Amino acid sequence: MTDWQVIPGGLTAPLGYKAAGIAAGLKPSGAPDLALIWSEVEAIAAGVFTTSVVRAACVDYCRERLEAKASARAILCNAGQANAGTGEQGWANAVESARLLGEATGIDPNSVLLASTGVIGQQIVMDKLRPGIPKLVAAASQNGSDDAAKAIVTTDLVTKSIALETTIDGRPVRIGGISKGSGMIHPNMATMLAFVTCDAMVSSSLWQEMLKRAADRSFNQITVDGDTSTNDALIALANGQSRTPAITEMGPAAEKLEGMLTAVCQHLAKAIARDGEGATCLLECQVSGAASDKDARQIAKTIVGSSLVKSAIFGRDPNWGRIAGAAGRAGVLFDQNNLRIQLGDFLLMENGQPLEFDRAAASEYMKQAAASTYLKDDTVLISVGIGNGSGSGIAWGCDLSYDYVRINAEYTT
Amino acid sequence: MTDWQVIPGGLTAPLGYKAAGIAAGLKPSGAPDLALIWSEVEAIAAGVFTTSVVRAACVDYCRERLEAKASARAILCNAGQANAGTGEQGWANAVESARLLGEATGIDPNSVLLASTGVIGQQIVMDKLRPGIPKLVAAASQNGSDDAAKAIVTTDLVTKSIALETTIDGRPVRIGGISKGSGMIHPNMATMLAFVTCDAMVSSSLWQEMLKRAADRSFNQITVDGDTSTNDALIALANGQSRTPAITEMGPAAEKLEGMLTAVCQHLAKAIARDGEGATCLLECQVSGAASDKDARQIAKTIVGSSLVKSAIFGRDPNWGRIAGAAGRAGVLFDQNNLRIQLGDFLLMENGQPLEFDRAAASEYMKQAAASTYLKDDTVLISVGIGNGSGSGIAWGCDLSYDYVRINAEYTT
Repeated sequence: MTDWQVIPGGLTAPLGYKAAGIAAGLKPSGAPDLALIWSEVEAIAAGVFTTSVVRAACVDYCRERLEAKASARAILCNAGQANAGTGEQGWANAVESARLLGEATGIDPNSVLLASTGVIGQQIVMDKLRPGIPKLVAAASQNGSDDAAKAIVTTDLVTKSIALETTIDGRPVRIGGISKGSGMIHPNMATMLAFVTCDAMVSSSLWQEMLKRAADRSFNQITVDGDTSTNDALIALANGQSRTPAITEMGPAAEKLEGMLTAVCQHLAKAIARDGEGATCLLECQVSGAASDKDARQIAKTIVGSSLVKSAIFGRDPNWGRIAGAAGRAGVLFDQNNLRIQLGDFLLMENGQPLEFDRAAASEYMKQAAASTYLKDDTVLISVGIGNGSGSGIAWGCDLSYDYVRINAEYTT
Repeated sequence: MTDWQVIPGGLTAPLGYKAAGIAAGLKPSGAPDLALIWSEVEAIAAGVFTTSVVRAACVDYCRERLEAKASARAILCNAGQANAGTGEQGWANAVESARLLGEATGIDPNSVLLASTGVIGQQIVMDKLRPGIPKLVAAASQNGSDDAAKAIVTTDLVTKSIALETTIDGRPVRIGGISKGSGMIHPNMATMLAFVTCDAMVSSSLWQEMLKRAADRSFNQITVDGDTSTNDALIALANGQSRTPAITEMGPAAEKLEGMLTAVCQHLAKAIARDGEGATCLLECQVSGAASDKDARQIAKTIVGSSLVKSAIFGRDPNWGRIAGAAGRAGVLFDQNNLRIQLGDFLLMENGQPLEFDRAAASEYMKQAAASTYLKDDTVLISVGIGNGSGSGIAWGCDLSYDYVRINAEYTT
């Protein structure tokens, strides 16, 4: 099926990238909070950002930069303060951050992209950021991906990283990525960030197209609590250092690259869903038989986002009525007499009619998933058919546990 | 402002109605589970039903009846089994239920409307329903509203009922109503039902229009967990027994009637939100300055439906960043520099800039609300301004507590 392999190295597995992560003192905890991704040459850059009209300054900044030119040399990310809802001062701090990184690296500040995650409404602690940036630049290395992955998390339980390699025209091409999100033990934190590096040579318009499609099949298909962040950002660089032929239109090489890009994004997205606040298992919903892929994805995302479905999974309850209910309210027309619902290997409903099944065994299936290790056999799979259409789609989420409420309610004002 | 008053009697406060509620044995608990609303003459009937494509048989049945003729004599409601996801047998049971009530009352079965609430995928226990119906009819009386209100609940903590009276053309006109919903201690239960009686004389098309608008400003503006039920139904009867002049077009009398109808619906809707699973307080969000009422309602509903906002309210945390975040992702365009957020009397953000405020006092405001008695001073009020438009809207919800998860996860398969 796939003709790529997992390799070590994360963000710096592709040629021509350095990365770093340090503790600059932005987080009160003293944990790493400043990350750098640095390409040795100007790289094609594409981004997908939050659709919220309440946006962080860094999101507006990246949009403005990428409209002016579709390339970049570096991404600077701080954790601790989201720089959202921060007004004019927030914008000024974003501009200064890019300028400071430019000074420390010799990069044109217009080639610096920015990301922030942390408490909404708090300004970046510039007194800590200013002395931190030269230290960050000094720490940058070809082994720095793990440090960067650690420095972008807020209260994630694990870091998320991957690198894949394939060959194009006989030469290796690599894509690496890191992401953070969804562990929100400290309140106010709610951001999905993902950074992807690639050493292929690809045109900027094609790279942006590929990234948009990959995001629609990965990050846009995960949900933990339905709350879109003010800071969500996916930024992908492609610096051409693989020295493979330029990819400028769709074709076998482009399809291979997009397939690998989608795989990287799906890995990072699933890792976020699995690390959702309080989650005990990964929830995957596959929908088929829809009129279009878009319809199928919408139903899948509605099901994994349903509080009632999520609570039932946490209770290890094969409660197919809630799955049917969520499918029905997803905003996609279908004939309920065609509805088919399967949980793991257990067929629960077919042709809109309830079926007899072994409830205890179906519950045990979910218990096993929750007891399994991280991202391995820990998936509760819901398969839903709604008709005879050719549209299909997948979405990922997690169960809703007591810990979700605890994490998001416990706060001493 | 309002020229109506609260009166006792609920559903049977309007002239010409009887009601009843009995325990027919449909619920394993033995609690009341069969309700009847019965007009002495054929009444104009209007309904608003779930938009889900996965619907209960009773919903399809009512739609079919009301398309054939916009009037009815009786509403039969069972609790315990939702008769949704029940296929052909479910439809046959619905038809038989209407026929049985017709036989017991002498009413044309085509004038019987149906509602069900309970476990999705379970057939109505017809062996209990059949002997129950004659008993239900025998119990019907002009004092039966409370019994009916008790028999339609599933695991609601309280019953919901109201009656209002005004004068039209010098004569009293009354609207009564009962509703149920949102307490889901027994899983699989998730239905909003509301029944409204009125003794005004009103044309069927106008009554349906009024009911649709009232629903948009009440039941369609509440959310507990975002999961639309397969069985949601609001049915309103108007039997003309007030002997007031026929209302056939909008004008002062119609506006008065619609205002009172909206007030009844809002009371019943807020009572459902307040009784949401695990709720400790009612959450009300008022949005103003939008381009349209629809836009304002959409933002308000997104805010009260946000899991992060709901968790923060449970934690008594004046976390305005989450409110801003939810407003931003509501799908309505606005300039974030116009955003204004107020919690009770505390102004938290203005012109898109964070303000200093007394966090401890704001937290105390929420604590007080949660400690207050049912539907009196128990409201946490969030006011949001997004610009200078004339559109405004309100939505109601509740906080998200540990008990929500407990209620929806605890289940022994």
